[in-house]
Amino acid sequence: MTDLIVWTWDWVPNGPRGHVRDIRLRWALEEAGLPYLVRTMPIANRGADHLARQPFAQVPFLQDGDIRLFESGACLLHIAGKSEALMPRDPEGQADTLQWVIAGLNSVEMVTVPWWFIGLKKPPENPLDGWMGQRLQRLQDVLAARDWLAAGRFTVADILMADILRVPALRRQLGPYPALQAYLDRILARPAFAKVLQDQLDHFAAADAARAAT
Amino acid sequence: MTDLIVWTWDWVPNGPRGHVRDIRLRWALEEAGLPYLVRTMPIANRGADHLARQPFAQVPFLQDGDIRLFESGACLLHIAGKSEALMPRDPEGQADTLQWVIAGLNSVEMVTVPWWFIGLKKPPENPLDGWMGQRLQRLQDVLAARDWLAAGRFTVADILMADILRVPALRRQLGPYPALQAYLDRILARPAFAKVLQDQLDHFAAADAARAAT
Repeated sequence: MTDLIVWTWDWVPNGPRGHVRDIRLRWALEEAGLPYLVRTMPIANRGADHLARQPFAQVPFLQDGDIRLFESGACLLHIAGKSEALMPRDPEGQADTLQWVIAGLNSVEMVTVPWWFIGLKKPPENPLDGWMGQRLQRLQDVLAARDWLAAGRFTVADILMADILRVPALRRQLGPYPALQAYLDRILARPAFAKVLQDQLDHFAAADAARAAT
Repeated sequence: MTDLIVWTWDWVPNGPRGHVRDIRLRWALEEAGLPYLVRTMPIANRGADHLARQPFAQVPFLQDGDIRLFESGACLLHIAGKSEALMPRDPEGQADTLQWVIAGLNSVEMVTVPWWFIGLKKPPENPLDGWMGQRLQRLQDVLAARDWLAAGRFTVADILMADILRVPALRRQLGPYPALQAYLDRILARPAFAKVLQDQLDHFAAADAARAAT
């Protein structure tokens, strides 16, 4: 089997380190025990070569033999199709996992990321505060009653949702949602997350060292 | 084969008519030629029964025998798995379709829907204007060079992206992006879209008539 290849940036400033979305792919691949390599694209030069692989000029993207995929959510679903560790094989379990992956992307992250983006400019009021609170409350109502999002077990949907929740957690928004905080702590306590977080931090630290040496 | 069941609201005010997201599911099912029924949930009473099916208190959701799914994006991928009319059967074509479905949900709609939401209050400036413009420009760069998003043919990704683009189009935001407008016009010209748009309008008009009669 050819190793999967996760593409990320060659370097990023300190702010996003630990949060670049290749971490989602690395995490899923570790949980699945699938071999993979990490390769880089130059962040300073997002030319035609980059846009041909990621039309929105972002990372990550994934290479699996002849198959190339961008969008972290799509990459996660593709990887999940390769390993029962990430998604059950029965149709009901697959559908449940799929719906919660999409809920992460389109019901939760669709609010949290624009909320974060707007907050970068530190406006007196964030027009998405109320909507984000509603979505986090709904999600807490779900997770107050069970340990995992989908299929009664850990799935790729938990990887994605936990990474999504890291953003409001970093901005101290989870205080009113103790069941969400407990869920996040539980998922992030998995050894695979600790490993890939350190791997990503090491990756960018090595880039710093290489720059300093030239 | 049991008919698929698309669940939507029993009634909505005039504003969202034609845009309630059951239209995405109806459209995909028409393109695929799959039989389906439409059933309703009371919009005025989103109780435990509703939250058990759609934890964010929204519609649509889909029933396919024992399988239940919420999130329009998840429902579209599930339906696409049933019909080559919506997604090619080869792994490369499937991956391409998947990545463009997720791009619609998480790269385009993640900006357009919060942009629309903020705009409802008519602020002097929308903090997402610039970001939305960037995403629309990137998407236009893709669609200026080809007719379909994925796999060199019409797929479920076009259904989703066209429905997503209807929102900025309605707010007259596509002027600077003629290739996006041309793409949208081309996809919306499909007979299946005209049918399901009319079906949704008729559905809510019938609800008005039923209310007036009581």
